[in-house]
Amino acid sequence: MRERELPTTLRFMLAARRSELLGLEDLAQTCELVTRLSRLVHALQKERGYSNIYLSGNAPHHRAQLDVLSLEVDAALREVREGFARIDLDAIGGPDKTRLFTRIAYALHGLDELPALRRRIREHRLSMHEATASLIRLIGSLLAVVFEAADTAADPETTRSLVALFNFMQGKELAGQERAIGVAGFAGGHFEPDKLERLEQLWEAQERCFATFCRFAGPDALALWQALLESDAGSQACRMREVARRAGPDNSFSADLCELWFELHTRRMDAMKHVETRLEQDLLQRCGESIGRIRKDLLSHRKLLDGLADMHAAAEQARLFSVQASDLDAPPADGMTSMVARSTLELLQNQTQRMQVLRDELDDARRALDERKQVERAKQTLMRDRQLSESEAYAALRKAAMDQGLSIEDVARRLLALSEQHEALIRPRARH
Amino acid sequence: MRERELPTTLRFMLAARRSELLGLEDLAQTCELVTRLSRLVHALQKERGYSNIYLSGNAPHHRAQLDVLSLEVDAALREVREGFARIDLDAIGGPDKTRLFTRIAYALHGLDELPALRRRIREHRLSMHEATASLIRLIGSLLAVVFEAADTAADPETTRSLVALFNFMQGKELAGQERAIGVAGFAGGHFEPDKLERLEQLWEAQERCFATFCRFAGPDALALWQALLESDAGSQACRMREVARRAGPDNSFSADLCELWFELHTRRMDAMKHVETRLEQDLLQRCGESIGRIRKDLLSHRKLLDGLADMHAAAEQARLFSVQASDLDAPPADGMTSMVARSTLELLQNQTQRMQVLRDELDDARRALDERKQVERAKQTLMRDRQLSESEAYAALRKAAMDQGLSIEDVARRLLALSEQHEALIRPRARH
Repeated sequence: MRERELPTTLRFMLAARRSELLGLEDLAQTCELVTRLSRLVHALQKERGYSNIYLSGNAPHHRAQLDVLSLEVDAALREVREGFARIDLDAIGGPDKTRLFTRIAYALHGLDELPALRRRIREHRLSMHEATASLIRLIGSLLAVVFEAADTAADPETTRSLVALFNFMQGKELAGQERAIGVAGFAGGHFEPDKLERLEQLWEAQERCFATFCRFAGPDALALWQALLESDAGSQACRMREVARRAGPDNSFSADLCELWFELHTRRMDAMKHVETRLEQDLLQRCGESIGRIRKDLLSHRKLLDGLADMHAAAEQARLFSVQASDLDAPPADGMTSMVARSTLELLQNQTQRMQVLRDELDDARRALDERKQVERAKQTLMRDRQLSESEAYAALRKAAMDQGLSIEDVARRLLALSEQHEALIRPRARH
Repeated sequence: MRERELPTTLRFMLAARRSELLGLEDLAQTCELVTRLSRLVHALQKERGYSNIYLSGNAPHHRAQLDVLSLEVDAALREVREGFARIDLDAIGGPDKTRLFTRIAYALHGLDELPALRRRIREHRLSMHEATASLIRLIGSLLAVVFEAADTAADPETTRSLVALFNFMQGKELAGQERAIGVAGFAGGHFEPDKLERLEQLWEAQERCFATFCRFAGPDALALWQALLESDAGSQACRMREVARRAGPDNSFSADLCELWFELHTRRMDAMKHVETRLEQDLLQRCGESIGRIRKDLLSHRKLLDGLADMHAAAEQARLFSVQASDLDAPPADGMTSMVARSTLELLQNQTQRMQVLRDELDDARRALDERKQVERAKQTLMRDRQLSESEAYAALRKAAMDQGLSIEDVARRLLALSEQHEALIRPRARH
């Protein structure tokens, strides 16, 4: 029986399942792209690290090493560009693409600027601080693509994997920023108070990212992470933190520590990459499993609906031959019709219930992303309203959380609610 | 310049805007469907009301009136079916359709059962309670479609309108349920304590729906609503509430009050329909305005990007003829290239910022829907874990809110968080 001939109810049920499958297939492509982005981010973090080392001294072997790393970035970048090229920009489905595509455009623009940035680094026409800031922005634009992918995914299991991966990538990026600030501090022989404050923030923010990762990651990735924490790679870098912490502005130290700090942190980040690779595999596997499940469901669903449609047609046929039948006052539903109706209802109830469970699980995973967004918004509100720097705004949130015994997320939520009420009070929203 | 020739960054920017437009055009169709659903719901509410009156007595003029109302429902139903038929089930875009289509299938199934339900009512083969319950379920399935439409819309202004409309429709439906319970109570000569409790719940739930409506509605709809509250239609029905409240199980009264209660509540609901019609007009207008704005934006955006692409091509050309140029060590960006880069960045920053503002506004409107979902989930958790009826579960939430001086939404959120922790503790989530 062709689909056109199915009763409308059954057609909508089938279209709902097909839409789910299409959404997942589209998501699978995005996930594949995300794994390429993760490799590019890792390579860029390495290039940023060596750029700093290169800018801190002037040894020729650093230049050669940097050139090798740039080539590695270029290889990862080609993969990413290939991934972008595979996206069919004309076959755009839901409205969600708006945000994903804008994030991709932003990232692409930053990547176009990379050659110029590299030249200025090699010619020492940039300070370590400027070079780091540029590469933080670039990596941030790539992470924003991963965030958007997680925020628009509709399959809960895949979303959980994406939330775990995004938070791990973000935590690792904060570890990279920690490495950069440490290199600058140790190379300069001391840490300014604002640098130390920033390091404290980075440590705490890493904790929060990895805590969220732990909530959403699968058992294999968790086991790898646990092993890392207990390994030399994990612990030695953290012991170096104590050295930095004790090194105030007056308490200068040998610049040799710079290479040690860099070395240990690089080892830690490389070890993190292994966990990340596991997360990527989990992601692709879960997404593949979900697709397999839905495909199988769709097939058996299709068969069930066809069976129902046949019964429905037979019932209609039977009614045609029924003597009592009239258009004005049809007889009560006969056995066949009501059996079809009951079976349809049962299927519908299954589908609705399943949808509700999926929706609840999805809401749960998305809430972790929403909390991040609220902290970001609260930070920006503080920066705008009180003319604070990003770091000062974050410090203010952290202090408020500690003073009130709340989480940073709770403080952010309350602050935003207050500032919305305030805005509504002083600047009534124009409606048009 | 054809689009294929645009640099990738610009192509993604353009695709993002086009995706936004497509999403809005799709949304416009859903909004149009929602206005048809609103008319069907109103007609069904009327049929339910007269069905109750018919079932409470047996006067022949009620039967004739009921037949007229059934015809009105059928006319509205034809419009809705036409709306459904217009949906192209093969051109399904985002994954969001899964939920909307399942809701539609559910509603369609219920509508298929309507003729049989009507026969049983006319033959007095159903109690007033059963008939009311069936029609409440049917109307609920239609409201669920409206809710899903609101929950999946991506344009903030349109979402605000949908949230206002949904909450108004829901409040009006609760008013309809109030009318039905009152008819049963006055027809029977007295109110059982559970009926009175249910009435109290319906009054309070109406307040909450209309409060949310007030937060999101435009000024015209608000003015109409205010006028309704101050009118006879609005106040007389509410005064009848006092009569019901004073009428305990022992305190019986004349059955004549039944028709008066019905009459006044029907007038109130008809007046509400005027507000609803205004909300529908607002909805279609806002959606149309958003589409117009995006179309205009897209056009000027396209021009800007074409201009940028021309500049980009010219810069590439210039570099070909530049003597210093080599692939290995390209010269620093010349004036033309960096101007193109700056203009692209500026456009991108505008687009990203605009997207962020839209996203924040959308989150704000969606939160109102999310709160409703959480209250529903909390209610269902209570029903499942403590074997309560829906009404008892709601009463328990309400009592907890009053005892703790919190809103019902806050209590629901806390209860769900606790029950998730509890679940995680006793039943570790299987990961596969």
